[in-house]
Amino acid sequence: MIIPQTPKGFRDFLPSTSLKRKLVLAKIVSVFERFGFDPLETPAIEFAETLKGKYGEDEKLIFEFTDRGDRQVALRYDQTVPLSRVVAQYPELPKPFKRYQTQNVWRAENPQKGRFREFLQVDFDVVGSSSTLVDSEIAQIISAVLKELGFKKFRILLNSRPLLNDLMKSSGVDENLVTGAITSIDKLKKIGIDGVIQEMVGRGIPTEVAKKVIESFQNAKPNQEVQSVLDTLKDSGEDMSSFVFEPTLARGLAYYTGIIYEAEVEGFSAGSVCGGGRYDKLIGQFSGTDYPANGASFGFDRVLEAMEEQGLLPEVKTTTKVLVTIFSKDLVQNSLKVAQELKAQGINTEVYLDTDAKLEKQLKYADAKGIPFAIILGPEEAEKAVVNLKNLSTKEQTQVPISEVITKLT
Amino acid sequence: MIIPQTPKGFRDFLPSTSLKRKLVLAKIVSVFERFGFDPLETPAIEFAETLKGKYGEDEKLIFEFTDRGDRQVALRYDQTVPLSRVVAQYPELPKPFKRYQTQNVWRAENPQKGRFREFLQVDFDVVGSSSTLVDSEIAQIISAVLKELGFKKFRILLNSRPLLNDLMKSSGVDENLVTGAITSIDKLKKIGIDGVIQEMVGRGIPTEVAKKVIESFQNAKPNQEVQSVLDTLKDSGEDMSSFVFEPTLARGLAYYTGIIYEAEVEGFSAGSVCGGGRYDKLIGQFSGTDYPANGASFGFDRVLEAMEEQGLLPEVKTTTKVLVTIFSKDLVQNSLKVAQELKAQGINTEVYLDTDAKLEKQLKYADAKGIPFAIILGPEEAEKAVVNLKNLSTKEQTQVPISEVITKLT
Repeated sequence: MIIPQTPKGFRDFLPSTSLKRKLVLAKIVSVFERFGFDPLETPAIEFAETLKGKYGEDEKLIFEFTDRGDRQVALRYDQTVPLSRVVAQYPELPKPFKRYQTQNVWRAENPQKGRFREFLQVDFDVVGSSSTLVDSEIAQIISAVLKELGFKKFRILLNSRPLLNDLMKSSGVDENLVTGAITSIDKLKKIGIDGVIQEMVGRGIPTEVAKKVIESFQNAKPNQEVQSVLDTLKDSGEDMSSFVFEPTLARGLAYYTGIIYEAEVEGFSAGSVCGGGRYDKLIGQFSGTDYPANGASFGFDRVLEAMEEQGLLPEVKTTTKVLVTIFSKDLVQNSLKVAQELKAQGINTEVYLDTDAKLEKQLKYADAKGIPFAIILGPEEAEKAVVNLKNLSTKEQTQVPISEVITKLT
Repeated sequence: MIIPQTPKGFRDFLPSTSLKRKLVLAKIVSVFERFGFDPLETPAIEFAETLKGKYGEDEKLIFEFTDRGDRQVALRYDQTVPLSRVVAQYPELPKPFKRYQTQNVWRAENPQKGRFREFLQVDFDVVGSSSTLVDSEIAQIISAVLKELGFKKFRILLNSRPLLNDLMKSSGVDENLVTGAITSIDKLKKIGIDGVIQEMVGRGIPTEVAKKVIESFQNAKPNQEVQSVLDTLKDSGEDMSSFVFEPTLARGLAYYTGIIYEAEVEGFSAGSVCGGGRYDKLIGQFSGTDYPANGASFGFDRVLEAMEEQGLLPEVKTTTKVLVTIFSKDLVQNSLKVAQELKAQGINTEVYLDTDAKLEKQLKYADAKGIPFAIILGPEEAEKAVVNLKNLSTKEQTQVPISEVITKLT
């Protein structure tokens, strides 16, 4: 016998969970489409060299292996690098290219609470325009998605990579210590001023300079890039209380070149639910020519967790509306006919698929599955050409003609 | 520079293709749900031993590798084995368990026309009932899906694994040559009577016995299993011309134990679009107890190919309804406001994301993307609080108030 189990960090989604995920995903996708984005799908397996050199030190988490043809291949690690490859590979795609992509990615993370080795990313990106209209639309979409999902209070943090660099350099941080210093300042909220100074000093930055850095960031004002985005958002009629300039925001990935974003849901402490930014130099690695690009990615599991915490997840166990029970072997045909009629009307209908189960067992099954109604069709009903419609939550049962069932369930 | 390419046998789905695939998949899923099936998702990666010993000689096509933790793992090869593992692993799932599953599978096939290394399978199965109602519902669903997709003429072939064995044995085929003989008879339509006899003789079956086999299959009648399914289909009001008893149908997979199905679309010669059958002994390999099970799988690429050939594929390039162009830098705000209004009404609206492109370029872009309408908003329109709505296929252009645009596009 084989022990039925999944490898650590991998998950099965049983029907009720899978349905909830589908519903939430469909809501997010509807927002992307409302803003004029179309879907893209890329393969699970890419040549390893397509992915390498893009993710910084996290590169070690790529699931890489040698295939039967002795090629080094790797599982999709994110959706930004595949998008970049696609843009370079199909130059005929009209630009700006606006695409969304909702596929699984794989990372050999140490599995822990809320961290998985296979998880869904929900990305949207605009390639081929460096306009500030793109930069503000990305922020606007993050906001529209969070609203669509029912979140009342959230903050979309905005910053600019060039601004981060400028602030570091003008504070006197040595050119080759800037990246490290940015990593430290990113932790300001987590480890506090003293913690950041200590960490910077540990990186070889003089204490005086580290103090100067703190001061510059505390007094930082939006640069022109950030300011134009804020202005455009205002022009678009957005509620500006959700958009916040956050000079210490850094974002991990190496490939950002301009504006960066992160979204936080109020009351949800497990981290940001969305992040992104401009990456004008990534596609050039595949195409030889640079294409300006900007986009963001929702961590689907984080989004669901936040929705769950705030009671925003839809309660759904099945899409089935009614179970047509089987009263006895003689009446199977009657039940099948009724079920056929309901299905013809587009009503999701399940027939109990056993001819010798007791009625009680059949109703218990409907309950366990979360089916809201059951139809019972005994000899009396068959004769009168009616059915018993039972509401399984109120336990109310009424003898009605089939037409009434259709009206009630559509 | 990295050459932008995908490994052989793997595909990118650009927006128009991806949209078509999504639409077709949604139609199939709607039928599954109409029959009371709910979704299940399983991970891409399983322990290799979960998959091994289930697929016969095709097992060599499994994508298998050693992960960082030195575990032998493998990519999902089909959805029947993961379903079987799930049923064993979560005994709390109410039975009969009716699930559909639409995920990619990976097979290290030799890539050739219509054969890929990553492809979508569209499965539905019922676990936990050996009733003939299940056997007929599976056939009924295959038919309902094909109708939903618009196919007018198709045949659902039915046969029974026990019947195949009985016919072989009663013709005098030696017990340990039965499996080989079944593989040969399955090719009757392809290689003809003489071809089958020759192949059987090559397998060590005497010519006389081989001739007897042909004769038995030519005169074969449905056994009780097949007959009850045909009767139940008739009772359910199905058009019986689509369901055909086909005694030579064998199906490749080793795990079938009862009724088997295959669906053919008339006029489509690239092979069957759906196959399945009863497998009452597979789940027992994980759970220790047998669970009766039956289901079928649509080959999504085959289905699409057949739809394409018969002109049934939806023509869709984008879900975007309208492009709001940008007339000049002064009028950006006006265009953004109009776009905002349209989006608020649920109309999929794209704003041209560059403030200094010529109008002609913007309209060409809309054309290239397949967006049906464009809005042009110049100084005159801004003043009058109207817009120019341009139909991009008829080239007709009319000055209308925004409310009229909303009525027209919703």
